[in-house]
Amino acid sequence: MSEMATRAAAALARIRIEKPLLHHITNLVVMNDTANVTLHIGALPVMAHAAEEVAEMVAMAGALVLNPGTLTPDWVTSMLIAGRQANARGIPVVLDPVGAGATALRTQTNLRLLDELQVAVLRGNSGEIGALSGAGGVVKGVESVEGVNDPLAVARALARERKLVVAITGPRDIISDGERTVAVDNGHAWLATITGTGCMATTMVAAFAAVEQDYLLATAGALAAFGLAAELAAAHAHGPASFKVALFDHLYHLTPNQLSAGARILTL
Amino acid sequence: MSEMATRAAAALARIRIEKPLLHHITNLVVMNDTANVTLHIGALPVMAHAAEEVAEMVAMAGALVLNPGTLTPDWVTSMLIAGRQANARGIPVVLDPVGAGATALRTQTNLRLLDELQVAVLRGNSGEIGALSGAGGVVKGVESVEGVNDPLAVARALARERKLVVAITGPRDIISDGERTVAVDNGHAWLATITGTGCMATTMVAAFAAVEQDYLLATAGALAAFGLAAELAAAHAHGPASFKVALFDHLYHLTPNQLSAGARILTL
Amino acid sequence: MSEMATRAAAALARIRIEKPLLHHITNLVVMNDTANVTLHIGALPVMAHAAEEVAEMVAMAGALVLNPGTLTPDWVTSMLIAGRQANARGIPVVLDPVGAGATALRTQTNLRLLDELQVAVLRGNSGEIGALSGAGGVVKGVESVEGVNDPLAVARALARERKLVVAITGPRDIISDGERTVAVDNGHAWLATITGTGCMATTMVAAFAAVEQDYLLATAGALAAFGLAAELAAAHAHGPASFKVALFDHLYHLTPNQLSAGARILTL
Repeated sequence: MSEMATRAAAALARIRIEKPLLHHITNLVVMNDTANVTLHIGALPVMAHAAEEVAEMVAMAGALVLNPGTLTPDWVTSMLIAGRQANARGIPVVLDPVGAGATALRTQTNLRLLDELQVAVLRGNSGEIGALSGAGGVVKGVESVEGVNDPLAVARALARERKLVVAITGPRDIISDGERTVAVDNGHAWLATITGTGCMATTMVAAFAAVEQDYLLATAGALAAFGLAAELAAAHAHGPASFKVALFDHLYHLTPNQLSAGARILTL
Repeated sequence: MSEMATRAAAALARIRIEKPLLHHITNLVVMNDTANVTLHIGALPVMAHAAEEVAEMVAMAGALVLNPGTLTPDWVTSMLIAGRQANARGIPVVLDPVGAGATALRTQTNLRLLDELQVAVLRGNSGEIGALSGAGGVVKGVESVEGVNDPLAVARALARERKLVVAITGPRDIISDGERTVAVDNGHAWLATITGTGCMATTMVAAFAAVEQDYLLATAGALAAFGLAAELAAAHAHGPASFKVALFDHLYHLTPNQLSAGARILTL
Repeated sequence: MSEMATRAAAALARIRIEKPLLHHITNLVVMNDTANVTLHIGALPVMAHAAEEVAEMVAMAGALVLNPGTLTPDWVTSMLIAGRQANARGIPVVLDPVGAGATALRTQTNLRLLDELQVAVLRGNSGEIGALSGAGGVVKGVESVEGVNDPLAVARALARERKLVVAITGPRDIISDGERTVAVDNGHAWLATITGTGCMATTMVAAFAAVEQDYLLATAGALAAFGLAAELAAAHAHGPASFKVALFDHLYHLTPNQLSAGARILTL
C-alpha cells in the first residue's frame, strides 16, 4: 500500500527531527535493548518507574511504553499513575502485554491496564492477544505456543471493543483499529531467535506514535521499519547475536526512502 | 568418556525438540544474556519474580533457575515459593550461589535455599562452593579469588551431604553426585573476560536438566556444550565483546554431533 | 599534557595488577554493560543493592559507584548506607547523577547524596551538572538538551563549593577540582548513539580512582582512556551496535603505552 508506506516514511523522518522522549516502564530483561532501539531510530529513551516521579517524567514524553514483562504490584501502580497522566495530556500509551495468558497475575494486570487507561496501541503475540480478547491462545512463559484461529477477526473485534489499535505480531503482522485492518509482511525468521524482539517492536510503535496521530499508520509503519531492518540485517548474520548487532546497526541507518520502498503494508 | 558424550548429545537433541520452559529468578545483570542463551540452546526463557505468580509460572517449567546475584529479601521469598512448588512437582531446581562467601547475606541466603529446598544441581565457582561447604575459599564481590584446595573432595562431600549434584566450574569443571565424579575440560580463557558466564553456564545446566533426569550427566553435558561453543567462538574473537557475539552464535548452531565429538568429559 | 598522560598510563597499569573491586549501586539499564566495562579495563565488578549487605560489600571495594538512573527510595537508602561506609573507610565514591534536572525526585536525590556523603567525583552531562549547580541546563529524560553556558566556570565553582572533582562530559570533557581544571578531547561521535556511555565513563572513573588518589588525574585518565578506545573502535563500526562491540574489545586491549601516547588532556 504505497500511500501508507509514504506516510510511514514521513513519520520516520519526523522522529529523527523531533527526537521525542519515550518514557518506558518496562521489564528488566529488555531495558538496555529497548533504550538502544529508541536511540537508533532517532528518539530519546528514559526508563523510570518510581511512583514519586513517573507523572512528572511522562509529562515530557512523546509516548509512554507500558510493558509488565517482569511485573510486581509496585511497578503496576507506577504504570497506572504514568498512564493516567499520559491520558490527561493526550500522550499515546503503548501496551505490550508480555506473558498475558501465562499466569492470572499477568492476564489480570493487563486487563486492568486496558480497563483503567485509554491505551492507544496494544501490541502482543497471538497467544497474548488471544488471552486478553477471550479468543483463546496458549502462552508458555512469554511465548505464544498456540495462537488465535482468526487473527484478523480477533484484532478487529478487540480494537472495536476497546477503542484502540490492536497489533498481533508474527510472521505476518495484523493491525486493526476496528475499521481499517492492515497486514505487514516485513520481518525475518532470525527475529524469533533472540529475546525481546516483541518489546523492541513495541518501542518502535511508541516512536512512530509520538509523531503520527493516526495510530494505525504509526503501528504499521513502525512494524514495517523494524521488519525491514531485520531483512537488511539478515544478510550479515552468522547467528542470533551477530544478527542482533546488524539489526541495531540497520535501524540506525534506515532511511525514509528505504522504508517507503521496502515497507510491505497491505490493506485487508 | 564417549558414552557420556553420546548421551549429552542426545539430551541436546531433546532440548531442541521439547523446548522446555526455563523459569529464571535471577540477577539483574545477566537477565538478557541468560534469556538469549536459553533461546539459542533451544529452550524457552521466562523471567518472573513476583510472589503472586511464581508458583503458577514454575508449574509450566521444565526447570527452575535460582540465582540470587542481586538479591533482596523479597526476591528470596519468591525463590522459596517457586522452589517449593518445583519440588512438589518434581521440576529440577538449579542454584547458582553468586557471591556466596562475599557477604553474610549471600552466604546465609544460599544456605537457606539449600536447607529449605531440594536443589538438583548447585553450580558455583570454587570460592562460592568453598564458602557453602565450609571448606574455605575467598570471594571478592562475585569472583573467586581463592578456591578450595581439593575441589574433587569438596564437590563429592558436599554432594553426599546435600544429596544433590555439585559443579565447581573453572578451567577444569568438577562435577559430583557423591558417588560418581567427572571433569569437563571444555572451555576457553575468553570466558573469564565477560560478565555472567557462570550464570550462562547455570542456564545451560537447567536446559539439560529439563530433559535429562540423570543430573550428573545433564550438568556435564551442559558444561561441555557451553565450553565447546566457547572454543569454537574463540576463533572469531577480537576481544571479549566479539567473543560473546560468537559464543551466542555458536550456541545456536551447536549440533549434537559436534557435542558428542567435542565433549571432553572424564570420569575421575 | 604529557605528564598527566604518563601518570594516567601508570594508573591503567595498576588497575590491571591490583584488580580493584568496583561496587556499583546503579541503574537497571546499564548493569550488564558497566560490569563488562569493569572487567575489560581490568577491575572486578559487583552489583549489590540490598540494604542488608551493601555496607559489608563496599568494605571490600576499591571504589563505589552510585548511579540513581532508575532510582526508587529503597535503592537511595542503600546508596546512603554504602556511601557512609565508603566514606568511613576512605574508599572513593563516584556519583553519576543520571537525569538530575528532569524530575524533582532526581534532582533532590542527587543533592541529598552530595549533601550527606563525601563524593570524590561527580560526573554528568552538561544539563545534569547545570541542574545540580544551579547554573541552569535542561534535561529531557536523561539527555542534556541545553547545557550550561560556561562549563569551565560551572565545574570549577561546583568543585570548590562541594570539595570534590566535577566532570562535565561531552565532545570536550571539562574536569575541575576547584584549583586545577583540565579538558579531555578524546572521544567519538558514535558514543552518543548508544545508551549508557555516560554510565560506562563513570565506571571507568571509578576504576582509575580505585588506584589513583589524585582524583582529578584519575578522572582525566579514565575519560581519556574511554575516549581513546572509542576512537580506535570507530574504525571497525558499521553502526552503533558494531561500534559498541568494538569499543568493549578495545577497552580490553588498551595498553598503558597507547594511553600515554593517545591521551589528549589539556590544562586550562
